[in-house]
Amino acid sequence: MAELTAVVHGAIELATATGDLQSDDPAGLRSDAAVAVVDGEIAAVGPTDEVTREYPPENAVHDVDATGRAVIPGYVDSHTHACFAGDRSDEFEAKLRGTTYGELLASGGGIHRTVRATRAASGEELLDNLLEHLDVMVAHGTTTVEVKSGYGLDTETELRMLDAVDRADDRHPVDVVPTFMGAHAVPRPADRPDDEYGEGDPVDADDYVDRVVSEQLPAVEKQGIAEFCDVFCDEGAFTVDQSRRVLEAGAERGLTPKVHAEELAHRGGAKLAAEVGAASADHLLHATDEDVAALVEADVTPALLPGTAFGLGADYADGRAMVDSGAPVAVATDFNPNCHSQSMAFASALACVEMGLTPAEALVAGTRNGARALDRPDLGVVREGAPADLVVLDAPSHVHVPYSYGINRVATVLKDGRPVVGPEWTGERDRDADSGGER
Amino acid sequence: MAELTAVVHGAIELATATGDLQSDDPAGLRSDAAVAVVDGEIAAVGPTDEVTREYPPENAVHDVDATGRAVIPGYVDSHTHACFAGDRSDEFEAKLRGTTYGELLASGGGIHRTVRATRAASGEELLDNLLEHLDVMVAHGTTTVEVKSGYGLDTETELRMLDAVDRADDRHPVDVVPTFMGAHAVPRPADRPDDEYGEGDPVDADDYVDRVVSEQLPAVEKQGIAEFCDVFCDEGAFTVDQSRRVLEAGAERGLTPKVHAEELAHRGGAKLAAEVGAASADHLLHATDEDVAALVEADVTPALLPGTAFGLGADYADGRAMVDSGAPVAVATDFNPNCHSQSMAFASALACVEMGLTPAEALVAGTRNGARALDRPDLGVVREGAPADLVVLDAPSHVHVPYSYGINRVATVLKDGRPVVGPEWTGERDRDADSGGER
Repeated sequence: MAELTAVVHGAIELATATGDLQSDDPAGLRSDAAVAVVDGEIAAVGPTDEVTREYPPENAVHDVDATGRAVIPGYVDSHTHACFAGDRSDEFEAKLRGTTYGELLASGGGIHRTVRATRAASGEELLDNLLEHLDVMVAHGTTTVEVKSGYGLDTETELRMLDAVDRADDRHPVDVVPTFMGAHAVPRPADRPDDEYGEGDPVDADDYVDRVVSEQLPAVEKQGIAEFCDVFCDEGAFTVDQSRRVLEAGAERGLTPKVHAEELAHRGGAKLAAEVGAASADHLLHATDEDVAALVEADVTPALLPGTAFGLGADYADGRAMVDSGAPVAVATDFNPNCHSQSMAFASALACVEMGLTPAEALVAGTRNGARALDRPDLGVVREGAPADLVVLDAPSHVHVPYSYGINRVATVLKDGRPVVGPEWTGERDRDADSGGER
Repeated sequence: MAELTAVVHGAIELATATGDLQSDDPAGLRSDAAVAVVDGEIAAVGPTDEVTREYPPENAVHDVDATGRAVIPGYVDSHTHACFAGDRSDEFEAKLRGTTYGELLASGGGIHRTVRATRAASGEELLDNLLEHLDVMVAHGTTTVEVKSGYGLDTETELRMLDAVDRADDRHPVDVVPTFMGAHAVPRPADRPDDEYGEGDPVDADDYVDRVVSEQLPAVEKQGIAEFCDVFCDEGAFTVDQSRRVLEAGAERGLTPKVHAEELAHRGGAKLAAEVGAASADHLLHATDEDVAALVEADVTPALLPGTAFGLGADYADGRAMVDSGAPVAVATDFNPNCHSQSMAFASALACVEMGLTPAEALVAGTRNGARALDRPDLGVVREGAPADLVVLDAPSHVHVPYSYGINRVATVLKDGRPVVGPEWTGERDRDADSGGER
C-alpha cells in the first residue's frame, strides 16, 4: 500500500524552480502552497486547502507545518572535491600574509599536500571525513552533491576515494554522485619518493596522461562506481589535447565528460567541453562570449563556482552576462581545501552580490541547473513525480537565503520526503551500518 | 561558597586575544589549555593538567571537554542596528536588478521604510524581533553586542527602541549595550503624514538636530538606558557641525560619543570623532591616513564593518593599512536591514579575504578590540578575572573560522561560564519572564 510519507503545508512561498533562468519567473513561485509526498515522491503540488483535502497531513508519516515559511527544492551541488584528508587552513593564513599559491606549491603545499595526506589515509578515514562534510552540506540544504576523486593521482588511491564516495552515498541521506578525476594535476615524485614513477624522476604530463588512460581508467571502469570523468584543463595542469585524450578515453568507458575550464587562464577548455559534449564546463572565470555561446549551442551546462573566486581574491565569472546570453548557468560550491565552504546558501549569496544574479536566478542555478550539470533532470525541482527533496526555510521567501549572508536559514530538510535535518530529525545517522543507512 | 561554574579543558588551541594587533602573537595562543571558571569569572588559565589538578572538571557544574578543539573569547559585536521592524529583503533583490539606493529612498524605501515599520511596531514586537536576532548572534559566538536606536527619529519611538534593548539585555544571555542614535537620518514628513513636524512640511536637518538636542536627549537621559550617543556624519545625513552639536549635547547628558564616519563620502566624521574623544569611529571606507592617525592619537577605536561593503558592492575600508599604521582596529557586523548578517564569523572572513587581516588579527578585532570600542576593557579576552565568555569551536584552530566561509564553526558558547549554545544548553530562554532570564 502506498505510504503518505509527508505533507508540507501552509508555505507562504513555494519556489518550484521549474522556470528557465531567462523566463519571467525562474523560481516558479507559488503562494500558500502545499506538497504531498507518497512513497518518497511528490504526488501533489498546489494550494494548501486543495492538497490537504486530498492528502490530510494528520494521515502522513511526517506532518510538516511550513506556515509563514518558504519552501525550496533541495540544493544540487554539482561540483565538489569533498573527499580528502589533511588540513590546509594554514595556507589560507599564509596567503593572507602574502604567500602566493605558486610559492605554496613550490614548498610542497597546495594540492600536492592534499595528495600526500589522501594517499596516506585509509578508506575509513576518507569516508569519515566525507560523512562529516555531508552533514554540514545537508544542514545547509544540499540533498544531492557531486564528489570528485583526484587527490590520489595513482590508481590505488583514486579507487579508494571513489569507494569512499560510494559508501558515503550508501550511508548518508544526501545523494552522492561520483566523478573520476585522475587528471586533476600532474603528480610530483616528491609527493611520494618511492612512488610508481621512480624516485626523483620528474613526471611528464604526457606520461601521466598515458597512465590515466591506460591504467586508471580501465580500473575505474572495472570498479563500476564513477559516472563522470573530469579533467583540469588549464595553465599548469593539462592542455586541451591532453584533456581531450582523457575525456575521450573516459567516454569510451562509459563516463560522461566534465571539464575544469578557463579558471586560471584562457586555455580552450570551454570549447573542448562543447566539442566532446560534456555535461558541464566549470569555473569559466576567463571564458569569452564565444565560449559561452559554444557551450549553449552544445547544451553544456556552464557551472560557476563563486566561492573559489572569493577565496582566491580573483575576479568572478560574469554570471550576469552568461544568463543574459541565454546560458543555463549552474552555481556550485567547489568545496575543497582551497575553498572551504560547503554552503550552497553562501555560494548563492556570492552569485547574487558578486555576479549580479537575482535571488530567483541563484536558486534555479543551485537546484534545477545543478541537476542539469549532473544529467539528473528529475532533481532540483518541485513538481509531481520528482523525488521529494525539499527545504523549509525559517524565512518567508527564498530571497532571504542570499540576503542573510553568512547565516544558515534552513529549518527542515526532507530527503525523499523524510526529515533529515530539523525538529523531526531524530538522531545521528548510523555510520557503522554496513548498508542502507537512511535510504 | 564559591561555585566552580565550569572547567573547559583539553583545548588543542586557546586564543586568549590578549595581544595587541601589532604584536607577534595578537591572538595570544596557547596549546593544550584549560580555563577554570569560578562564580562566572575566569579563575585560572593554563595547561590542562595544571588547571584540572586545581579545579577538577568533575567538580564543576559544567564539565566542558574541548579535546581537539579550539577555544576563543566570545565575540563582542560593537556596531549593530538589530532593533527594528519590517522586512526589506525585497530591496536586496531590487538592488541586484539595478535599482540604486537613492531610487529606493525616493520611492519611500531604504531607511525610511524601516522607520515607518518601527514606529508602527509595539515594544513587544521590537523585543521579540531583537530576541530572535540575539539567538542567531549567540549561535554564531557573539556574547556581547551593541544595539542602536535610530529607526524612530521621534522621541516616543526612540525611547521604545531603547526600552526594548534594555529588556532584551535582561532576558537574553547575550549582554546588550544600548546606544542612542536619534541622529541616524533626517526624518521625512512622508514617514508619518500626521507627525509632529506638521503634514507635508519638509524637515530641515538643523531643525531636526534641535529636536534631538532639546527633546530626545533630555528624554533619553531621563530614561537612563543609553550609554552611547551615535550620529551619522555623512553625505545625505548630518554635517560635522550638526554631528558635533548632537555628540556634545549627548556627552553633557552622560553619553559617550560614537560616530558613523566616512562611509559614503569623506565628510570629516573621523576627525570629529578624534576631537570629541569618541569611543569609536565606524565604517571609515573613505578615511585617509591622516584620519586614522588622528583616531590613533586620540585613542578612538576604528571600527570596520565589512559586511556593509559586501552588501553594497562598495570598496572595503583598508583594514590592512590601518593595522599596519598601529590602529587598534575593531570589526563588527553592522547588522541591519541593509546588511542582513548577524555573524561575526562572516565579518571575520570578510576582514581577512577582503581587507587582508590575518585570522589572528580578525579574531582580536572582533573580540578584544570590539570590547575596546564599547569601553569594556574586561571583555573579549581570556584572562584571570575576566567574565567567562567563551566559545568552543568544532575546529582545531581559530583560523578555521574565516577559512570556513559561510559556515558556523561554533560548537558551544559559555556566557559567564554557563552554556547558552551547544550540547549542555538545555532549552529555550524564558522570554515571558519579567526579569532576570538567564543572568
